[in-house]
Amino acid sequence: MPFLQHLLAQLSPKKAFHRQGHGVLLSYLLRWVFISLLVGGVSGSASALFLVLLEFVTQYRETHAWVLYLLPVAGFLIGAAYQYGGKGSEGGNNLLLQTIQKPSLARIPFVMAPLVMLATVLTHLVGGSAGREGTAVQMGGSLADQLTPWLKLRPRDRQVLLICGVSGGFASVFGTPLAGAVFGLEVFLIGQLRYHALLPSFLTACFAHWVTLSWGVGHTVYPEVVPPAFTVLSLGATLLAGICFGVVARGFAGASHAVAAIFKTTIAYRPLRPAIGGVLLLLVLWALGTTNYVGLGIPTIVASFETPLPGYDFALKLFLTALTLGCGFKGGEVTPLFFIGATLGNALFPWLPLPLEMLAALGFVAVFAGAANTPLACTFMAVELFGSGCGMYAGLACVVAYLFSGHKGIYGGQVVGSSKHLLWGRDTGKALEEL
Amino acid sequence: MPFLQHLLAQLSPKKAFHRQGHGVLLSYLLRWVFISLLVGGVSGSASALFLVLLEFVTQYRETHAWVLYLLPVAGFLIGAAYQYGGKGSEGGNNLLLQTIQKPSLARIPFVMAPLVMLATVLTHLVGGSAGREGTAVQMGGSLADQLTPWLKLRPRDRQVLLICGVSGGFASVFGTPLAGAVFGLEVFLIGQLRYHALLPSFLTACFAHWVTLSWGVGHTVYPEVVPPAFTVLSLGATLLAGICFGVVARGFAGASHAVAAIFKTTIAYRPLRPAIGGVLLLLVLWALGTTNYVGLGIPTIVASFETPLPGYDFALKLFLTALTLGCGFKGGEVTPLFFIGATLGNALFPWLPLPLEMLAALGFVAVFAGAANTPLACTFMAVELFGSGCGMYAGLACVVAYLFSGHKGIYGGQVVGSSKHLLWGRDTGKALEEL
Repeated sequence: MPFLQHLLAQLSPKKAFHRQGHGVLLSYLLRWVFISLLVGGVSGSASALFLVLLEFVTQYRETHAWVLYLLPVAGFLIGAAYQYGGKGSEGGNNLLLQTIQKPSLARIPFVMAPLVMLATVLTHLVGGSAGREGTAVQMGGSLADQLTPWLKLRPRDRQVLLICGVSGGFASVFGTPLAGAVFGLEVFLIGQLRYHALLPSFLTACFAHWVTLSWGVGHTVYPEVVPPAFTVLSLGATLLAGICFGVVARGFAGASHAVAAIFKTTIAYRPLRPAIGGVLLLLVLWALGTTNYVGLGIPTIVASFETPLPGYDFALKLFLTALTLGCGFKGGEVTPLFFIGATLGNALFPWLPLPLEMLAALGFVAVFAGAANTPLACTFMAVELFGSGCGMYAGLACVVAYLFSGHKGIYGGQVVGSSKHLLWGRDTGKALEEL
Repeated sequence: MPFLQHLLAQLSPKKAFHRQGHGVLLSYLLRWVFISLLVGGVSGSASALFLVLLEFVTQYRETHAWVLYLLPVAGFLIGAAYQYGGKGSEGGNNLLLQTIQKPSLARIPFVMAPLVMLATVLTHLVGGSAGREGTAVQMGGSLADQLTPWLKLRPRDRQVLLICGVSGGFASVFGTPLAGAVFGLEVFLIGQLRYHALLPSFLTACFAHWVTLSWGVGHTVYPEVVPPAFTVLSLGATLLAGICFGVVARGFAGASHAVAAIFKTTIAYRPLRPAIGGVLLLLVLWALGTTNYVGLGIPTIVASFETPLPGYDFALKLFLTALTLGCGFKGGEVTPLFFIGATLGNALFPWLPLPLEMLAALGFVAVFAGAANTPLACTFMAVELFGSGCGMYAGLACVVAYLFSGHKGIYGGQVVGSSKHLLWGRDTGKALEEL
């Protein structure tokens, strides 16, 4: 009886392997729950402390405008701290990405975590235009890597651990666990997403987010975006907006690298770069006569969902952020990218048949998607911040921006896993900074 | 002046390449907007017609119970139609996945589209337990592939076209464009996601969804799931539930293949398999004395969000679906997987500290994630169907279910791109049906 034979085959010892499989998977799950709890605990706590400090210095700056005059001094302090106490941690995000790609490299210095936190807080105190994600990601990665010798991890597992650090830092600093989990998986390779760190990355992102919330630290709440009627016009407008976001993302990446290159070639003594950059920033701010573009710029981001703003806002923020980070101040690029994107979306409002808040939301995530080359993480972020109604529009805008930013990006250590277009096929396997 | 040199370098002819790049990208975008409109138009229209027919036959069956007696006759008709008019299209989803992996294979027969639609409608009319996505995906893939010679596509672009067909079919039949877009990218390889079809897939999914809506065809609306308080208990419960969902997903895949193998080895004449299967189904339904488990089962799925149901519902649906599809009736696996997952989640309610609707929602997406090996598409689906509040929990459950279903799944043509666990490292590069 073939039927009975088949039934018996299902129960045979050969199938025991699969029963065994469940035990192996369970121990794998428990192991990574344990490690993710550790990484989530440290990165979530670091993010919580960081967010509290940021809030404090931002309020202080807004009520004590004179601190802007400290820009050159703060710049010098930051430059000197990295020069004499950095132990190689000025590589920042790129050092992290390189180590994820080659997990046999040396340990990420512990000092990266406190140094980048203090430098970023100082940058925000004196009115540099910078963000948070770079700081959170570097804290997460550096703190996670200190567990490597303690947990006796092999290179393969160390790679997963570092991805967890990135995911945890990102998830907890923005309050977006899904975006954080996918960002960690997506950021080190362009054009590919591998699943070997899927479970650890999701676990750490959730735990880190939970830890930050448990410390009583909240996140900016953005309006729920109501999607417009689904027509040829709204779809076409989303694609056009996506092109603009991608081109500006590329422009931001280019400007940041250009400013950094100019400072590097013209000023040999490193601590002097952010000091002179600080003087320039001060002059520009004095000429502009406004502090709209300093710090994180959350009030302007929120305003861009509600009311038309000057069309040049995005360009000024782009320039000031490129100057701040290019000369050596510290902080992330992502919140400025949110600012640039949201105000650019706002500026497109007279030209495109989409609601103002939808354009601001699309710009918010899509400029970031183009500049960081992480379209899926940014689509998740749109859904987590603005509700699921805008998901499809955000997905389209992010994917188009990702394509139109080309092989450019804010992370020079990112490697082209698979080229975005056949035109650039020969870039495959190279890091962005080599191109 | 290095500064001026740098500025001039930015404007040099070498940079013209990048300016040129924008033109290439624009023509690439326009080309795929055009192709995606075509594929979205045909797959979205096919899904609309299919959904209307399904609605009609479901209502007819519910008011005319005697049609269940036609199960054996309908089975024979379907078997005979595939035997004598199938032109190789009985390969179904697997043929599609194999062609995506090897785009030099022969054209997908056009007859696959009408055949699978009629066979599925007939299956649902007489009370088989089946779904929709297989049908929609096969219609999308087959119709898309008819464009290959007309558009003179090379194998690489044909691969992208077929992915578009899958995305469009999936997106339009469930009304979930993001899940559809990512499903098309995720389904043919386990453990990897490549971005070469990112833009076309997103475009087609959106267009197809839009076309189905434009035909006036709607989708089932599920309740917005309110997330529970974020505690150790709720996170731990999500992980435990995810394990259950993964194990049941693996069980479903195993049962389907086992039933198919039994029919294949015991009955040589193919049209007789669904005929005899129909007799068996009729006997089982008569013994059960209920029609709760026939057809799509949408009312039970909706009920599982609201009220506790019998704990054995998921097992009976699993058995009946494996019998229906294993013997040769047509239809997808996904709606039954929604049913199995939602009722399993419902059955876990007395044991796990999560709200009923959250458990049903997690099961809905996570059993599917485990059985189809598409955790990211299912996370997007959760957000699109149940709102962004449940996103993080759904992500965790899907990822755990994906791990615990092992290298098993409902699509035998799926290839292991990168193994889920080192334990199964040697499976890499093999199709699931070879394992």
